[in-house]
Amino acid sequence: MQKMRDEISRRTIARMAIYYNTLKKMLAEGETTCPSTQIGQRTGISSSIIRKDLSCFGEFGTKGVGYRIDFLLQWIGQILGYTTVWNTVVVGMGMPLLTLNYQSFLPPGFCIAAVLDMNEQNYGVLLPELGLPIESLQNLENVVFEKKISIGLVAVPPEKAQTVTDRLVVAGVIGIANFTQAQVRVPDNISLTQINAGSMMSQLSYDLAHPVAALRSIV
Amino acid sequence: MQKMRDEISRRTIARMAIYYNTLKKMLAEGETTCPSTQIGQRTGISSSIIRKDLSCFGEFGTKGVGYRIDFLLQWIGQILGYTTVWNTVVVGMGMPLLTLNYQSFLPPGFCIAAVLDMNEQNYGVLLPELGLPIESLQNLENVVFEKKISIGLVAVPPEKAQTVTDRLVVAGVIGIANFTQAQVRVPDNISLTQINAGSMMSQLSYDLAHPVAALRSIV
Repeated sequence: MQKMRDEISRRTIARMAIYYNTLKKMLAEGETTCPSTQIGQRTGISSSIIRKDLSCFGEFGTKGVGYRIDFLLQWIGQILGYTTVWNTVVVGMGMPLLTLNYQSFLPPGFCIAAVLDMNEQNYGVLLPELGLPIESLQNLENVVFEKKISIGLVAVPPEKAQTVTDRLVVAGVIGIANFTQAQVRVPDNISLTQINAGSMMSQLSYDLAHPVAALRSIV
Repeated sequence: MQKMRDEISRRTIARMAIYYNTLKKMLAEGETTCPSTQIGQRTGISSSIIRKDLSCFGEFGTKGVGYRIDFLLQWIGQILGYTTVWNTVVVGMGMPLLTLNYQSFLPPGFCIAAVLDMNEQNYGVLLPELGLPIESLQNLENVVFEKKISIGLVAVPPEKAQTVTDRLVVAGVIGIANFTQAQVRVPDNISLTQINAGSMMSQLSYDLAHPVAALRSIV
């Protein structure tokens, strides 16, 4: 039962991140207030779910008018931890996306402060988007300490994922985002998010191979 | 209730993909049989969950000996749809990873048959890893038809995600993997997987901003 509640809450958090991006765009377009139906139209999420998600954290919105966008943005940003700067180290270049397109990909607050790699040939190469050179994986402990790193993004080959995670944790990070195909374990006091795109793609081929299963999940 | 059952099932599928990768590596290392505890050690998933997942689809394994790896691999591969070739079109270059590292990232069976982009400057550029040129987004309908595409990977800017998805569906794909920050909608007979790494990262900053929530989710 506890687990179920936590699942729901993690889904709410994921949707809150989507509301945030949508509201930010609406604000940029000159909107100042919006009803939940409008967020619904833009996100494809039903307005009853939106209202339920937002009411999880307090009462907002005026009947017939909707939510004040600036206020809602600030408030969701605070809930999601966007208003704090989280110094982040990227370990491994397995996820070029992280450095190439990091601005559109990382939530506000995440600040890439160092990029480490295990490939000697890359050492010293400057990443212009970040203004950072690629450093050696051997510097991991020093980098975490000196740059006050809170979060480690693990994008190394899967067989190295646990070792790198362990080193990051010992060095002092408090959150790990694991982008590898491997599952990693962390101590109870460390936050972990596993982003295994391969597994998620497998759900697609499973659905296609079992059309009945796909249809069932729609009912 | 129906929804809950489907959630569980999607998680099982995600774990099956992890078992598959692990077993493949074990086979390459010369192992022929393995107990669930050994899969557990390598994946960080408890052996009771592993046994439960595998028993969802039939009875396997010999007490005291474990599973025959080659048989299990073939069987999981079939369940996950890995034994069918799914011609796939990548739309948008927002996910350079897909083309750079596609081999380690895509499940077996996914075959990238075309890459489309909306940036005219990229047209005709050859992607050596794929042996494919980047084509114009305008060709989408022709490409889906001529190359018998089943799956569309959407990696365009978020505001274009729904339009591209709609075009793919009308053109005849039966599965969509959406890598953008936008939620997209598809008709009931189309499979959809939304891989929103930004949302998943937000769960991390949420946990860090609310240490109590993080601890609670461990209980």
